[in-house]
Amino acid sequence: MNRDQLERSLAQSDLDAVVCVSPENVFYLSDVAIQTQRTIPDRLALVVWPRGDQPTFIVCSWEEAQAKAESWIADIRSYVEFQVSPMQLLADVLRERGLAAGRLGLDMRGLASLDYLELRELVPSARIVDGTSVMARARMIKTAKEVERLREAAEVTDRVIRDVFSPIAEGMTECEVATRLKTHLLCAGADSIAFTIFAGGANSSITHPAASDYRLRRGDLIRTDFGGAFGEYLSDLARTAVVGAPQQEHVAMYATLWEIHQALIAQMTPGTRASDLFHSCRRLYEASGIPFSRAHIGHGIGLNVHEHPVLSPRTDEILQPNMVICLEISHTTPGVSRYHLEDTVVVGQAHPAILSRTADWRHLLITG
Amino acid sequence: MNRDQLERSLAQSDLDAVVCVSPENVFYLSDVAIQTQRTIPDRLALVVWPRGDQPTFIVCSWEEAQAKAESWIADIRSYVEFQVSPMQLLADVLRERGLAAGRLGLDMRGLASLDYLELRELVPSARIVDGTSVMARARMIKTAKEVERLREAAEVTDRVIRDVFSPIAEGMTECEVATRLKTHLLCAGADSIAFTIFAGGANSSITHPAASDYRLRRGDLIRTDFGGAFGEYLSDLARTAVVGAPQQEHVAMYATLWEIHQALIAQMTPGTRASDLFHSCRRLYEASGIPFSRAHIGHGIGLNVHEHPVLSPRTDEILQPNMVICLEISHTTPGVSRYHLEDTVVVGQAHPAILSRTADWRHLLITG
Repeated sequence: MNRDQLERSLAQSDLDAVVCVSPENVFYLSDVAIQTQRTIPDRLALVVWPRGDQPTFIVCSWEEAQAKAESWIADIRSYVEFQVSPMQLLADVLRERGLAAGRLGLDMRGLASLDYLELRELVPSARIVDGTSVMARARMIKTAKEVERLREAAEVTDRVIRDVFSPIAEGMTECEVATRLKTHLLCAGADSIAFTIFAGGANSSITHPAASDYRLRRGDLIRTDFGGAFGEYLSDLARTAVVGAPQQEHVAMYATLWEIHQALIAQMTPGTRASDLFHSCRRLYEASGIPFSRAHIGHGIGLNVHEHPVLSPRTDEILQPNMVICLEISHTTPGVSRYHLEDTVVVGQAHPAILSRTADWRHLLITG
Repeated sequence: MNRDQLERSLAQSDLDAVVCVSPENVFYLSDVAIQTQRTIPDRLALVVWPRGDQPTFIVCSWEEAQAKAESWIADIRSYVEFQVSPMQLLADVLRERGLAAGRLGLDMRGLASLDYLELRELVPSARIVDGTSVMARARMIKTAKEVERLREAAEVTDRVIRDVFSPIAEGMTECEVATRLKTHLLCAGADSIAFTIFAGGANSSITHPAASDYRLRRGDLIRTDFGGAFGEYLSDLARTAVVGAPQQEHVAMYATLWEIHQALIAQMTPGTRASDLFHSCRRLYEASGIPFSRAHIGHGIGLNVHEHPVLSPRTDEILQPNMVICLEISHTTPGVSRYHLEDTVVVGQAHPAILSRTADWRHLLITG
């Protein structure tokens, strides 16, 4: 975590404090990844971060030993589950820290509405607003350490996809390939699998299908959209290949999409508007005669799969050094196929650098 | 999903409809598991279920093909991400279905407070209350099909833990064992890993530690608390063993805890109060001279790791046939060790049945 980055983001706001509750924001602020935040979402952990002051970390008593062992935050408080509500302890902390009538940026994407309504009653004088953008603005500029974690995650994932794809032959099922992707990624160092999409033939045209018992055939287009967590940092890559023998149209379409993909990566320099990248993509599709109907063409990545900036026409962000962004180029023919290329790019001081290439994906990979 | 079960739960309420948004509730009602509900939480999917009527299923356009292919729900609506907010489409559906001034049981643990506040403005006449308990009450009684899914999940997980534990020898790291647990479970048929706790020696005394590079030593107590998803149904088992050579006190404490565990399982019959199981557990600990400081001693399991009923002194649920419950017995000596036994039990018409035993865990397993 970059403390300066957060304080800069807070300084651009009129908030007295941020109050965070999502696993990602709590990790970002505390350095502690509490597993049960994901598996038992009612067991809340929170960080109260007053502007320019020391934070307070609130955890369930089950997690207190871990928090004390791993966090840099000195002020750690705990509640006993089912006896004291975490919102009650939060309200006590807010009062104690002089924030009960303050302007609070609450992590409103992370906090369930039930907890919000409880808090609202406990601190009626607080001016509670959405703190999502303050945290997103801090998190979208990565530290050098974060870029290295994301590079490792992307490189390992790229290598695993290549290793699993290369020997794919007809007769294998989608499930078998999906299991190989997952187990290879775990053995290669991922702590968990974030998501696994693998589909072949007509199934590939569904955006997010579950892997099925469909047996791959020679000539099938195959596609993965796949990522894992390395520590708390995520990978998200998409690759398209063909089983055994490509059709000429597969090769040609892939080549066209690859060129668009590369042209856009070259444009990912500081000062470029996220929305302009989107418009540029639309023009490149249209110039190639490919219908364009995308809502966005990529997104930041870090502790979440989707972070800021989103590469959409509605985004007002401008690319800055140390943003790490997944650029996604795809083309779907409903019921037939979907091509998908996704790479992870860090916006450098001058040139963008691709974090996610350990192999040459320039030509449509022919497996088997 | 048991439609009758939901309608019975709705009939016990004064709600006109439930509105669900969590991945688990949406799957329960629609039969569709949308991967991006977990990976891209802003991309909401919702089910509106008016009492005694047909539901409406709301998804992002990216997920429309999957929803139409897999759901039994006929009325499926989609929104284009970043162009129409899912709350706007939900408000339109509520108006169209005559529910805009109705009493709505909202999935307030699933819905982020930001979305709640948007919805609140869009349907100002609706009486919005928390629908969590209506859904929890429906989901806590499993169908025969759900019990079979949970049995498969529990049996596979038990077998994998035994297979991975049995050959553990000194010198292996916690990370190596954790990776084996995960990859073996995936190869044995799990679709994903829900959570993996594996620790040895003093690390085992932390409730939810991350696996470390600590190298196991002969005589270390080792412990896993581990589960995966099979389809959408989860496993959650805890097992304790010892590397190579047990100390006499390890054997004795394990035997005592095992007896308490078995005695409580025998009490999991229809009509037993969840809170009485907790009190019974406290008495058994005290009679054995083991300090008792637990907040709960187990929980229902299904689409979530923690479902109703929770076995705590504050629960008013009474055990009913086809509840599936994880019973957890543990004993922690801070900084030294933690014993943990957790099995999955289905409350039968007469006798409880243990779903999670493919091996005999009666005696402390000596590995290697």
